[in-house]
Amino acid sequence: MVDPNIEALFRPKSIAVIGASEKPGKIGYAIMKNLVEYGYEGKIYPVNIKGVEIKIGNRVFKSYKSILEVPDEVDMAVIVVPAKFVPQVVEDCGKKGVKVLPIISSGFGELGEEGKKIEQQLVETARKYGMRILGPNIFGVVYTPDKLNATFGPTDVLPGPLALISQSGALGIALMGWTILEKVGLSAVVSVGNKSDIDDADLLEFFKEDENTKAILIYMEGVKDGRKFMETAKEVSKVKPIVIIKAGRSERGAKAAASHTGSLAGSDKVYDAAFKQAGVIRAYTIGEAFDYARTLSNLPEPEGENLVIITNGGGIGVMATDAAEEAGLHLYDNIEELKVFANHMPPFGSYKNPVDLTGMAGAESYEGAIRDALAHPEMHSIAVLYCQTAVLDPRDLADIVIREYNASGRKKPLVVAIVGGIEAKEAIDRLNEEGIPAYPEPERAIKALAALYRWSRWKAKQK
Amino acid sequence: MVDPNIEALFRPKSIAVIGASEKPGKIGYAIMKNLVEYGYEGKIYPVNIKGVEIKIGNRVFKSYKSILEVPDEVDMAVIVVPAKFVPQVVEDCGKKGVKVLPIISSGFGELGEEGKKIEQQLVETARKYGMRILGPNIFGVVYTPDKLNATFGPTDVLPGPLALISQSGALGIALMGWTILEKVGLSAVVSVGNKSDIDDADLLEFFKEDENTKAILIYMEGVKDGRKFMETAKEVSKVKPIVIIKAGRSERGAKAAASHTGSLAGSDKVYDAAFKQAGVIRAYTIGEAFDYARTLSNLPEPEGENLVIITNGGGIGVMATDAAEEAGLHLYDNIEELKVFANHMPPFGSYKNPVDLTGMAGAESYEGAIRDALAHPEMHSIAVLYCQTAVLDPRDLADIVIREYNASGRKKPLVVAIVGGIEAKEAIDRLNEEGIPAYPEPERAIKALAALYRWSRWKAKQK
Repeated sequence: MVDPNIEALFRPKSIAVIGASEKPGKIGYAIMKNLVEYGYEGKIYPVNIKGVEIKIGNRVFKSYKSILEVPDEVDMAVIVVPAKFVPQVVEDCGKKGVKVLPIISSGFGELGEEGKKIEQQLVETARKYGMRILGPNIFGVVYTPDKLNATFGPTDVLPGPLALISQSGALGIALMGWTILEKVGLSAVVSVGNKSDIDDADLLEFFKEDENTKAILIYMEGVKDGRKFMETAKEVSKVKPIVIIKAGRSERGAKAAASHTGSLAGSDKVYDAAFKQAGVIRAYTIGEAFDYARTLSNLPEPEGENLVIITNGGGIGVMATDAAEEAGLHLYDNIEELKVFANHMPPFGSYKNPVDLTGMAGAESYEGAIRDALAHPEMHSIAVLYCQTAVLDPRDLADIVIREYNASGRKKPLVVAIVGGIEAKEAIDRLNEEGIPAYPEPERAIKALAALYRWSRWKAKQK
Repeated sequence: MVDPNIEALFRPKSIAVIGASEKPGKIGYAIMKNLVEYGYEGKIYPVNIKGVEIKIGNRVFKSYKSILEVPDEVDMAVIVVPAKFVPQVVEDCGKKGVKVLPIISSGFGELGEEGKKIEQQLVETARKYGMRILGPNIFGVVYTPDKLNATFGPTDVLPGPLALISQSGALGIALMGWTILEKVGLSAVVSVGNKSDIDDADLLEFFKEDENTKAILIYMEGVKDGRKFMETAKEVSKVKPIVIIKAGRSERGAKAAASHTGSLAGSDKVYDAAFKQAGVIRAYTIGEAFDYARTLSNLPEPEGENLVIITNGGGIGVMATDAAEEAGLHLYDNIEELKVFANHMPPFGSYKNPVDLTGMAGAESYEGAIRDALAHPEMHSIAVLYCQTAVLDPRDLADIVIREYNASGRKKPLVVAIVGGIEAKEAIDRLNEEGIPAYPEPERAIKALAALYRWSRWKAKQK
């Protein structure tokens, strides 16, 4: 069962912002602004020691001098005051009966032993009152289904099925921007910072049950309780896929990580083995992580091993075939059944897999080939590749894929790669906005599909 | 010495387009349009059997019924007529004294043995008259310094220092679009198609001497004369770096390549060893190839092994450090000298390499740190990393980098990675337009810098 205090982190009925500010440029203002502009529908109570008025667009908030003055129940208190005031504020929140405390403020464990002690005292205070702490040293939390954006990051996060957890603050905010630019839809963003109390395992337990989350992506530098994390990750992986970027792989990188978040990075080989055992999909770069997350959060599992590659360019067909073989994907090769594609190509095309519709392939060729592949019971997954030519606008191809995939009921995994210029980029964005994973390179599409296969095979073995 | 006929492929004084058309949508029209719109300043002579008038914008071209009627010397004849008419056209071009023939038309060696024979006859005719053939089965040729765009691909290719050679037609055109979207500046684009006569080695010899080309990128499925190619590549690599994407690595991919261009892909291990010996930088994907090409075509060689990483985010600093260690790059670690960076960061920053200016780093921090790194004689290469925060607009960072790098005389390699949203993307584009390699991920910047180091080390060993 999910801890109701963790539930309150994502779905609070009311929020206090302690250290709210009336000054644009201040974090205590940015949090208020994001809460309002992203459309949070619960009650918002700014707390400011001077009791200032805070204007956000048309709304004017009167602020309270202390959380204890708020005339209502408060589920979540976002704490933005300087470090030295935090212990008293946590005590006050306890008395008020707050459930969960995202502590944005920095100046604790990340500074050394002294800070760690104070952090530990905060956790003890929180325990005494039955509260949970997120952070400190974080940028906040987002939960898109409830229009909650309690961060000082970008406002316009795209709703979708992926939960994002970041141990790094600066990187986490930058990744929020990245997801907007790259059309990655998110259910949640959580900055875990120093992980004094709530850690990745707690969050995984929530996301496992959360109906709005289909996959989880974690940027991690280290974990404190490795055994607990791996056990939880394994249980969660049986239900939803987890992608992890674990920085600090190299010796020098591990040292840099230790000085950055104070976490012991640990031997990379140990992590690697543990991830494999727990069914976690490891990514080595940010790009790779989101590439994988697109397929894992959007596509159904394949019902078999047979991949069909449909292309208009021999070159990208070859590249995709290389990538498929290297990633352990099986190209369907029942030549009798593949003949169905001969209907959609000129005589010099090739219906051998990769299916080459040729550079002359237009809308009808692609439409027919995609429809046949989606309908064929032995074709279990599909990669649609397209080199931009003058024959077919990539945006029209995107519309064809969206229409056919929706009409088929989205029952098998389908990925798209479109190589080209600005129209190709627009087509890719359009597909991703519709939850159909699309990439600017064939290898990226294939590797992302392979990540889905890896997770699915691991899952099957657990039974 | 460069073959004057190959020289004429890039710098023709006059061009005939045989099979020119007045109908938009036809390839014979697209070639005319690109020639005119990209600003070619030599003479253009359309040849059309019906003698139609061809309008491109404000210009009206009268066409000739045969190349033999053109009342002027013709350096280059672009051939767009159907395959069956090509032999006669080549014969006529010979009589006319044309130097080089890009044959766009398809329907030759790529169709099988019969086509190969006809192709061979075309080459024999060309030899008889002292002409060279590019293709057949190509999309044309671009040479930006002379504003030549004799292709049916995109018009608005960005001028720059990279020459691009593609064996795949569809992919080549798509890559032209890609370079425009991704702000990759090109000196030339050549579609080699069936390589009946002019091959990669001929082109490499031209680019070796070409003052407008600093690096060469080849998309290759196979070569006919492997020994000749590798010998030429080795000689060229001593002067200018070559990046190759060689598709058809896997068994099944090689088979697909064979059926696509009719070229024998050969054992991948043989290619791999030969590339290494020839100093060729191999890329495994399109993205990787252009990532490498950016550093190799724009940056000076490093004068030593000491890399300095400057960052505002511990997370990306760690990722870059991992990537540097994995790629065999050496992080400068003279702690006394690194102390210079302490002037540009708050007390909780870290001047240990990676130099962490912290999330509070603004314009002055970056400006000072970059200037000091550029000026320091023991810091041989620089990676500037930035996680988008509210403190510093990434576009302002781009301007700082451009200003400081130019002021320093661009004497050492400098790469940039900016992680973030739309403003980060704009900053990256701005840097790339200025010839400063910039990437959306730290690992990509580091791997691209490592490619420059690999080439530079190989080159040093050849002396």
